[in-house]
Amino acid sequence: MIKAVLFDTFGTIVDWRSSVAREGASVAAQKGVADFDGDGFARAWRAGYRPGMARVTSGERSWVSIDVIYSERLDEILPQFGLPMLDEAERDHLNRAWHRLTPWPDSVPGLKRIKSKFLISPLSNGSVVLLSTMAKRAGIPWDFIFSSDMHRAFKRNPVVYQNAIRLLGMAPDEIMMTAAHNDDLEAARKEGMRTAYINRPTEYGIDQTVDFEATSDWDIIADTVEGVADGLDCPQL
Amino acid sequence: MIKAVLFDTFGTIVDWRSSVAREGASVAAQKGVADFDGDGFARAWRAGYRPGMARVTSGERSWVSIDVIYSERLDEILPQFGLPMLDEAERDHLNRAWHRLTPWPDSVPGLKRIKSKFLISPLSNGSVVLLSTMAKRAGIPWDFIFSSDMHRAFKRNPVVYQNAIRLLGMAPDEIMMTAAHNDDLEAARKEGMRTAYINRPTEYGIDQTVDFEATSDWDIIADTVEGVADGLDCPQL
Repeated sequence: MIKAVLFDTFGTIVDWRSSVAREGASVAAQKGVADFDGDGFARAWRAGYRPGMARVTSGERSWVSIDVIYSERLDEILPQFGLPMLDEAERDHLNRAWHRLTPWPDSVPGLKRIKSKFLISPLSNGSVVLLSTMAKRAGIPWDFIFSSDMHRAFKRNPVVYQNAIRLLGMAPDEIMMTAAHNDDLEAARKEGMRTAYINRPTEYGIDQTVDFEATSDWDIIADTVEGVADGLDCPQL
Repeated sequence: MIKAVLFDTFGTIVDWRSSVAREGASVAAQKGVADFDGDGFARAWRAGYRPGMARVTSGERSWVSIDVIYSERLDEILPQFGLPMLDEAERDHLNRAWHRLTPWPDSVPGLKRIKSKFLISPLSNGSVVLLSTMAKRAGIPWDFIFSSDMHRAFKRNPVVYQNAIRLLGMAPDEIMMTAAHNDDLEAARKEGMRTAYINRPTEYGIDQTVDFEATSDWDIIADTVEGVADGLDCPQL
């Protein structure tokens, strides 16, 4: 019997690409940068995410939070997008765009339904401040927050799933992992967790090469968080 | 400038004594135990809390969550309260009385006001499951949860406060610790945090020997969470 449902956030719950594109475009407009490619900016920024985490996971560098990884990547890409003039305060504000991401339209209604039956939490590579600020701003009703900086590890490191199971004091199959990424669910299943896949085929826009569909027989396969709520027999509110 | 306000929970936010007394009395009535002393039962159970944590903090035993400490103490005291006949499932349900504690009347209204200006979280010796179940049931609107099992340490171990500061990525004096216990605030102040004291003179009932008043010049001294909200200039909602 499932007792807790955990969620990937970037891509699964929130639409990082349009949120970050919008904030980048707003800064570019303030600075008088013409022909700013907001969507390309968001994709270029996000492209530093996996390599940045990989350096931590491989042990090449010691623990840093995702906020640091995003900030270093931002410094890298600002010149090519016409924004090398941003000062420290402006960079810091822009970096916090990742704290202000907007949920997909189905996310909050679906999470409220799932919350009515189960404990819900992110199991995310975000930091606790990122995830709680995002939730507060967007009305995401988490019961608690599992952040990468609590685990001091990033997914898909098995330690993240193992820590979550240990902290919950539940049998692994009493916990469901929900993600728009097949490899995230694969890692969760390896630890004995139940799995729910949400198809988000527009997450990466023109950069998307995988996760157009479920590549395994996950316990639930859906197109929205509401679909996961249906699969878990959660009532309409 | 304060950015996050953390709260002790047992005694500060919830009234453990009357909640546990009520649940004990209900079980005793079901079992036909006459003259059950609910208040004495709650106080006797709670009396195992500090010694139980002390054995972990001193290194005498390795990490166990507060749920285990409460469960072991329950086994110890059931015979003297006429309830040695409880089976494992009944003991487990009763042990989870600590997940179902009722807030003081001022707690939820005060927390909602504080939440409107700051990130709010428990900094508690409870487990994540205890704290999230309690919050969900009682409508306590935490932004996130810091539990002892995330830190793998109990207050007043300095590690707990240091971990919280590190996870928040804030300067220590951007974080306020709120508690009904002077020694909790003393430990927080040692790490550079701001402090708010709430007077809860009936917390322990006839067993109370300390914390009838603030014993230092804490940044805020109040009788309720609403009083702390006033001290932080949080608007009425």
